[in-house]
Amino acid sequence: MFAAAERGHRLDKAGFERRLQELRRVLLAAQYRLLRDPRFALVILAHGEPSAGRTEFVNHLTTWIDPRHVAVHAVDPDGVTAAGRPPMWRFWTLLPPRGRITVLLDSWYTEPLLDRLCRRIGRRAFEERLAAINAFERMLDADHHHLLKLWFHVPVRDLKRRVDALRRDETTAWRVTPEEREFVRAFRKRSDEVEKALAATSTPQAPWRVIDGHDKHWAQWQAGQALRTLLASRLSRGPERPPPRPAPVRRPPATPNALSALDLTATLDEARYNRELARLQARLAEAIRRKPFRRRSLVAVFEGADAAGKGGAVRHVAEAIDARFLTIVPIAAPSDEERARPYLWRFWRHLPVHGHVTIFDRSWYGRVLVERVEGFCAPATWRRAYAEINAFEDELVAAGTIVAKFYLTVSPAEQLRRFRERESTPWKRFKIGPEDWRNRAKRHAYDHAVLDMLAETDTPAAPWTLIEGDDKRFARVKVMRRLVEAVETAL
Amino acid sequence: MFAAAERGHRLDKAGFERRLQELRRVLLAAQYRLLRDPRFALVILAHGEPSAGRTEFVNHLTTWIDPRHVAVHAVDPDGVTAAGRPPMWRFWTLLPPRGRITVLLDSWYTEPLLDRLCRRIGRRAFEERLAAINAFERMLDADHHHLLKLWFHVPVRDLKRRVDALRRDETTAWRVTPEEREFVRAFRKRSDEVEKALAATSTPQAPWRVIDGHDKHWAQWQAGQALRTLLASRLSRGPERPPPRPAPVRRPPATPNALSALDLTATLDEARYNRELARLQARLAEAIRRKPFRRRSLVAVFEGADAAGKGGAVRHVAEAIDARFLTIVPIAAPSDEERARPYLWRFWRHLPVHGHVTIFDRSWYGRVLVERVEGFCAPATWRRAYAEINAFEDELVAAGTIVAKFYLTVSPAEQLRRFRERESTPWKRFKIGPEDWRNRAKRHAYDHAVLDMLAETDTPAAPWTLIEGDDKRFARVKVMRRLVEAVETAL
Repeated sequence: MFAAAERGHRLDKAGFERRLQELRRVLLAAQYRLLRDPRFALVILAHGEPSAGRTEFVNHLTTWIDPRHVAVHAVDPDGVTAAGRPPMWRFWTLLPPRGRITVLLDSWYTEPLLDRLCRRIGRRAFEERLAAINAFERMLDADHHHLLKLWFHVPVRDLKRRVDALRRDETTAWRVTPEEREFVRAFRKRSDEVEKALAATSTPQAPWRVIDGHDKHWAQWQAGQALRTLLASRLSRGPERPPPRPAPVRRPPATPNALSALDLTATLDEARYNRELARLQARLAEAIRRKPFRRRSLVAVFEGADAAGKGGAVRHVAEAIDARFLTIVPIAAPSDEERARPYLWRFWRHLPVHGHVTIFDRSWYGRVLVERVEGFCAPATWRRAYAEINAFEDELVAAGTIVAKFYLTVSPAEQLRRFRERESTPWKRFKIGPEDWRNRAKRHAYDHAVLDMLAETDTPAAPWTLIEGDDKRFARVKVMRRLVEAVETAL
Repeated sequence: MFAAAERGHRLDKAGFERRLQELRRVLLAAQYRLLRDPRFALVILAHGEPSAGRTEFVNHLTTWIDPRHVAVHAVDPDGVTAAGRPPMWRFWTLLPPRGRITVLLDSWYTEPLLDRLCRRIGRRAFEERLAAINAFERMLDADHHHLLKLWFHVPVRDLKRRVDALRRDETTAWRVTPEEREFVRAFRKRSDEVEKALAATSTPQAPWRVIDGHDKHWAQWQAGQALRTLLASRLSRGPERPPPRPAPVRRPPATPNALSALDLTATLDEARYNRELARLQARLAEAIRRKPFRRRSLVAVFEGADAAGKGGAVRHVAEAIDARFLTIVPIAAPSDEERARPYLWRFWRHLPVHGHVTIFDRSWYGRVLVERVEGFCAPATWRRAYAEINAFEDELVAAGTIVAKFYLTVSPAEQLRRFRERESTPWKRFKIGPEDWRNRAKRHAYDHAVLDMLAETDTPAAPWTLIEGDDKRFARVKVMRRLVEAVETAL
């Protein structure tokens, strides 16, 4: 990919200025069209060798278009800010809302490339990270966050001379950081590996554009043209169509299946319940206060049918955990800031730091449950969500987070009894509404969705625990036991 | 205040459990009423001496009410997370949206109390901090964030024995942190100063409730009752009335005044403009890269009449600053997350860390300009905003942030010319709409608002600079010069 960008093209200053007039007008018009009709966000990755023009490009870009709607980020390279969250957290939190443009001077490529060039990771691990990046970028694109990936390049034979010139000039010396010096040393020996990595991550929706950095005017002109082309192509796409209404599901899933196999008659008498719950709560409290947990964290996910006892289960887990280390995130309708970003953003923003616990009361599984059944998203969207969710949870687990997922079920008869009880108890009435009765009528559709979810996302790293919810005591003790086991095993 | 809480009241377990049933029902109903009709947020400050029951209260509270809608925070005491922002930033970012309840185990009282007890600050400084707290809490209350301030207390004569008992028990020893031991030592000598501080910050809208912590059941019962009373009183208030429509302003402000005194005929020829602008941009760029700026930050505020050249001025400042250290925050309609919090929250969340620059394109002055003139808020609201804004900017300056504020004016004739030019230039048409013409008709009302703003908020720490905007070159150079002076003087 580099050879085509080593032709040494030039553009004289006058020619550049002349072309720039028109380019700016087009870019500015496109930026305002996007702001007024915020269909997508644009994320520009500005990478490349020092001296090849990426810093100039970024600083000029914010003069070409309206800088008020462009954010530029250089990310803390040592990842201190993530404080125990997965490394990608740093980038997730920077994703712009639709309508806006963000430039990243360090991206999800920075660390893997440097790690590989400096031989801190092997070829296999590197390829896995590139594959994960491809999946991440596919998701971003599908969630209306388009990428412009620029690599500013100068031939390896010129690099040392150019970087030395930067370092000699005191107005530019600060740009060549220790990390960049390390990169240049390794790059000069192994530029072919970077080339291969760029090829491996040049996907149809997010190809790399290698910019010939020999001449600064040419480089900026080329980068500007790439931006213009991308904006034009994405703006020309029609608006998103509303998802089709799903066909009613009249058949129950074939039996036996994971749900039908549950024994909903299991019960626990009160004396044993009190004894076991207290013991398990004490064990959980103790585990979370242990020293090893200060380098770990816990994410507990609760999903379940209406009136299956999710709220009570969450409450009894919460009781065991010192409130200062616990956050409970109830998931309802997203805020407008959340709606303007990729789906998983609203969960990433709540991930726990080291030593903390986050309980999600409903979660990212909403996409493959309620959103699928109610037709809030297109079939293609919930189908791709399984892989996205698995990748997300893999990242959590790899960062040391313990992930425990619970699905609470309840038999139709017991659910009916609880609905009626809620309607007749004054202070429980707020817990029941027409929506619950409607959901109940869609039981088969929900059962299919739950079984698919279990089949697709019950992974060894983040397994599901099905909870028989007809007896609340039995359910709560089973949740606590599984949670205690998960935490104790991990520590 | 402590004597009344040293009577050693007791409540036996059975009596407590019996009362708790009813208390929980009432609290839960109140919590759900608040969630469904989110008129206010509740912030509970749980302070007190160790062993007096505050930890128990907080952990029990999350079992009494629905823990999914309660957040509990223990704040990093050394303030590392603030990274150069004012100390209060840690608490601002934790404020809940309306409808929710947040418990703070450390609050804006923690540091001043400890600093004073340990004689790290003098009496005068301490009193100033308490006065600032009173102003802050008045603002919170007026912005629908009500406070329940609890102080769990045991007599000084019992304190050492009780804390020693906590420390001996390995299940509670972790609760007594080094900061708390330091606090206990100082408190035993100077509890009367704490008492005076509580009295000084017991305001009508946010009084302290001292809880007798001799008996744990009594303490929890009292704290629960205090919460119940507060919720009931705040829920019984009627909904907020929409602000009255402001009367039209037909008279211009009396002359001469700060606006009429401006010489709008000042111009700058192109050659001098190019030379001066380049020189000033270079000086700003250099100042921001200097080492002392790594412990400082810059907030630049731009306000101005429509078409006065705000956008261009912002763009020319931005050109001078390395994009990786710059954030431009354009202020338009608030998001729903912002609307649910006190007014200034949306600005606190964008404050720069050390070494960074944030430009606010429109700002917190919106409250005393557009919101006043258009009647978006009640007169009482914009009137109190002056003092709130001055306090906010004082905090910024005290934290080492350089604050520069610009108001750009334009003569009616020049404004008209620019409006017409915008309408007739295809790629400027997006910059003008019916709203701009309406604002123009309200010129007198805006002039009054601007003059009041200058009179109330032109402080030595954060002065306003008025910019004559009829000649864009003159305006841009004046902005740059003032900004360079502000930064160079500060470093």
